[in-house]
Amino acid sequence: MSKESIAILGGTGDLGTGLAIRWAKAGYPIIIGSRTLEKAEKAVADLKALSPQTQATPMGNADAAAAGAIVVLTVPAEHQLSTLAGVKAQLTGKILIDVTVPLVPPKVGTVQLPPEGSAGKRAQDLLGADVSVVTAFQNIAAHLLQHDVRIECDVLVCGNRKAARQRVIDLAADAGMRGFHAGPIENSAAAEALTSVLIQINRQGEIAHAGIRIVGQSEH
Amino acid sequence: MSKESIAILGGTGDLGTGLAIRWAKAGYPIIIGSRTLEKAEKAVADLKALSPQTQATPMGNADAAAAGAIVVLTVPAEHQLSTLAGVKAQLTGKILIDVTVPLVPPKVGTVQLPPEGSAGKRAQDLLGADVSVVTAFQNIAAHLLQHDVRIECDVLVCGNRKAARQRVIDLAADAGMRGFHAGPIENSAAAEALTSVLIQINRQGEIAHAGIRIVGQSEH
Repeated sequence: MSKESIAILGGTGDLGTGLAIRWAKAGYPIIIGSRTLEKAEKAVADLKALSPQTQATPMGNADAAAAGAIVVLTVPAEHQLSTLAGVKAQLTGKILIDVTVPLVPPKVGTVQLPPEGSAGKRAQDLLGADVSVVTAFQNIAAHLLQHDVRIECDVLVCGNRKAARQRVIDLAADAGMRGFHAGPIENSAAAEALTSVLIQINRQGEIAHAGIRIVGQSEH
Repeated sequence: MSKESIAILGGTGDLGTGLAIRWAKAGYPIIIGSRTLEKAEKAVADLKALSPQTQATPMGNADAAAAGAIVVLTVPAEHQLSTLAGVKAQLTGKILIDVTVPLVPPKVGTVQLPPEGSAGKRAQDLLGADVSVVTAFQNIAAHLLQHDVRIECDVLVCGNRKAARQRVIDLAADAGMRGFHAGPIENSAAAEALTSVLIQINRQGEIAHAGIRIVGQSEH
């Protein structure tokens, strides 16, 4: 059975590139979307320079969103809502994996969540109930995704539908990461806010590529 | 050199009790504060039933806040601001360790941060710059604190003054936990929101007493 295609909108950034490399290696057909076909073609060329064996099809964002069975958003926070507004019709009935972290430069080490509570919540509000927004991967160091290393950081997977979260947890596993059901879309606030905390910890210099791992423990 | 005294306001709860047991064991004089002296006396009696060797002095909240070199707040979220308003004068020049998690029943597994962004931020706003609010311990399972077990979950320590955060990191170490500088008080949102995520993970039943651990990794 052939795998479902994954369209990555904003596949020009480090995180989009890293996810593309890992999912392509796992056998998923990859589409790279960008604001124009030319930018997407450039992104695919950059991707091949980084990872020559990775196959990806360039498209404009609307075509990419229409073609992908699953759509992933990895654009800078300030372009999140405008990008989604432009592809809303193409997302109907699909899962949107939103990786947006609402950092506000220059103080990217200070949590500054949007008035809606989180970037994930405002995406779900914009897209409505016909799209299953699932947030994930906000805490993963993009640089690590691009290389063949084991990723220690876990993925908090938030969204209002359990089946959609489970598909994203499975996709995380195919990309070499351990995902957890982290609750409804409101809970994306935790993962988004954690990114600023991890930036603070990285700045202290004792830990490289800080991440979080879910741990449990018995009482004895 | 004798250790500084620690006043725990709301020392009647599981978390306050657990911290009291661990800090008393590490040699800190402990004061248990409650709304009335009678309630505080009852809390100390309960504490001794749980941990006979633990010494603690009961006081009303205002007396406790005045007597403690460091003050810790472990009351339910709905009593956070009223309790702090009643002891504001006694906190001047001190560190307040605020453990408040703004859960909103019945949906405690859904992140519902307050309009100020976090419980930590609203405490700092209320108390003003003469009090160093530091938030910590929101993700620790209270039950584990009460027992002599190694705690795997790390402590995210937020506050606007580095020296104050460092003192709380040292106190966390004395209680058997690893603390991290997690940034300014705004970043308390991350730790507070994480508690709902951990509740979700606990509900799934595969992990007991879920917590988070900071991990780093090299690129190779």
